[in-house]
Amino acid sequence: MAMADQVIRCKAAVAWEPRSPLTVEEVDVAPPKAHEVRVQVVSSGVCHTDVEYLYEAETGMSFRPFPLVLGHESAGIVESVGPGVTKFSPGDHVIPLFLPYCGECERCRSVKTNLCRKNWANTQAGVLADGTSRISFKGKQIYQFLGVSSFCQYTVVPETSLVKIRRDAPLDKVCLLGCGVSTGYGAAVKTGKVEEGSTCAVFGLGAVGLTAVMGCKAAKAKRIIGVDINPDKFEKARLFGATDCINPTDHREPLHEVLAEMTCGGVDYALECVGSPTVMSEALESTTEDGGTCVIAGWTEKEKMDVHVLKILMGRTLKGTYFGGWKSVVEVPQLVDEYMNQKLKLDEFITHNLPLDQINAAFDLLRNGKSIRTVIGLQDP
Amino acid sequence: MAMADQVIRCKAAVAWEPRSPLTVEEVDVAPPKAHEVRVQVVSSGVCHTDVEYLYEAETGMSFRPFPLVLGHESAGIVESVGPGVTKFSPGDHVIPLFLPYCGECERCRSVKTNLCRKNWANTQAGVLADGTSRISFKGKQIYQFLGVSSFCQYTVVPETSLVKIRRDAPLDKVCLLGCGVSTGYGAAVKTGKVEEGSTCAVFGLGAVGLTAVMGCKAAKAKRIIGVDINPDKFEKARLFGATDCINPTDHREPLHEVLAEMTCGGVDYALECVGSPTVMSEALESTTEDGGTCVIAGWTEKEKMDVHVLKILMGRTLKGTYFGGWKSVVEVPQLVDEYMNQKLKLDEFITHNLPLDQINAAFDLLRNGKSIRTVIGLQDP
Repeated sequence: MAMADQVIRCKAAVAWEPRSPLTVEEVDVAPPKAHEVRVQVVSSGVCHTDVEYLYEAETGMSFRPFPLVLGHESAGIVESVGPGVTKFSPGDHVIPLFLPYCGECERCRSVKTNLCRKNWANTQAGVLADGTSRISFKGKQIYQFLGVSSFCQYTVVPETSLVKIRRDAPLDKVCLLGCGVSTGYGAAVKTGKVEEGSTCAVFGLGAVGLTAVMGCKAAKAKRIIGVDINPDKFEKARLFGATDCINPTDHREPLHEVLAEMTCGGVDYALECVGSPTVMSEALESTTEDGGTCVIAGWTEKEKMDVHVLKILMGRTLKGTYFGGWKSVVEVPQLVDEYMNQKLKLDEFITHNLPLDQINAAFDLLRNGKSIRTVIGLQDP
Repeated sequence: MAMADQVIRCKAAVAWEPRSPLTVEEVDVAPPKAHEVRVQVVSSGVCHTDVEYLYEAETGMSFRPFPLVLGHESAGIVESVGPGVTKFSPGDHVIPLFLPYCGECERCRSVKTNLCRKNWANTQAGVLADGTSRISFKGKQIYQFLGVSSFCQYTVVPETSLVKIRRDAPLDKVCLLGCGVSTGYGAAVKTGKVEEGSTCAVFGLGAVGLTAVMGCKAAKAKRIIGVDINPDKFEKARLFGATDCINPTDHREPLHEVLAEMTCGGVDYALECVGSPTVMSEALESTTEDGGTCVIAGWTEKEKMDVHVLKILMGRTLKGTYFGGWKSVVEVPQLVDEYMNQKLKLDEFITHNLPLDQINAAFDLLRNGKSIRTVIGLQDP
């Protein structure tokens, strides 16, 4: 292992420009500065958001600076810590967090939000607190993604964007708690507050949608309707708890009418896990007017959705969820415990394991609807 | 007083066709049928919704059948009851309700909604349970509005669309609890659940907006920003509790930016009391991303609002309110008590009192922003 104050040369998948495949390069990862931690990344899921920032830059998504190391759903081991870091030591098992939690600001103390803004502006801009990235290629700065950049064998993150987890948790599984599983599960149990005996519909049965189904089941919903245009997803959805699965292309009527008919007027909870404004409007209208709640968990940055005012006026609620509403540092270890206690599934989401060299194959699998999650083994040969 | 089983001939303001003034006619009001109550209407406010159904029929509002007797914000005295009515007797002081409460259905038993649907379909179609109206002119049926039609000296309503109130409450004041005051006040305290110490913005300072301001004050909000393009409303808004008043036309920036600047990032609660989709979008974006709530209280039926998905995703909530979220029969008497105990203002909303013969003047005052509420004295000479 390198010394704490030395640059580490290692492999990373670099996104040189939008809409082009990644290339695996030898990059240099600088030592952590004050209040930063260098992490050996062991495993990283490939999330739709990684794909979208690459292939939808400036269309659905706002532009992030390139060249860029993507990856934000990971787990690893602390390699070294910078000055002033007291909560982490080399050897700690950790999950890097794209949503920080400083524990001190007004937002961290509020029960209404999990949006801590510590280092927010700079990590959204692809750099750390001093305005630079710790990753470079032949002296050229490579931007970091959301303060994480887990498609790199080592990365440096702010200490408030990291959480220590129990040592017996398998890193190649709990990495999924860094984004997708937490988001969908929290959309149901935390933001949506799905109630026992309720009726739910989950739109989109990718990783976020399947975890939303799992959340609805954990909340003891009596009926969980999975919706996807790809019927290959239905078997897995049933495994996670879906009681019905429907394919909108099998119906001539608008989806909200189909769901209203199936449920005598609409579902209590609709969870949008696609990121499509059209689907969002359908999801909202699929809820019952007598107190239905629609939670938007699918990500899109530049688009607008249409809301029929009358549908809101009569009593529906529209909410969004970011990282499932979880306070990252406080609650991710609890989710790890839920997994270790067999209350929360993770293994079942993992359809593929690939080494870093094959990351473009992982992107293709996801874009073509052939995988739920591919976990990249960063240290694999 | 007429016999309970006799037709009463009396005066009513009839809307013969959309977009034309009302004419006061001698109409016949039939006796109440089973589970109906005939009410002598003493006072009726003129609400924007009355104006909109007349002047925006088939544009902003869905079409209601004409000829029609408008009016839905009233108070009166029971004249007679139909077969099977046990909760009302002649002489009872009452408020007719456009939102019923049967007390028995699933919705009446739910804490999530106030949308009882008893007689809903027929009253929305302008008739009572048997498919006909009780009001006629020279033998021709005149449709009833929302099951009420309070611009008539007598009307017949379903027993589930009526609530008995204390006899010492002045009917010419508490009539306002039949719609506008309840809606805006409830938008703040009941649907929005405005919290002590919070920051609020109220968009539109008509009757609904002013009552929303009153609700924010009752909830002990620390800052209440009134917004209207008519600065004549500001003095009254301050009387009801507004701490600041702003006129969007005084600013070049979008309103949500102005409000974000005034409040370090946005308000905790935005209450839309205009009924304009453009204002609704501004109201939503004016809330803080860390848990802000936007409640839509302004009415429009056929329009859509734009929602920037990212604004919802980060943690805002969009809700609607119908009749302020109150369970009508249960809670309107409590609001009457609040008025009688000086906890809730009503007198201050009433800018004009006019007899039925001058109802078109009342419509004009409202359309021209010259009144907050005109109360029509139905029995005045």
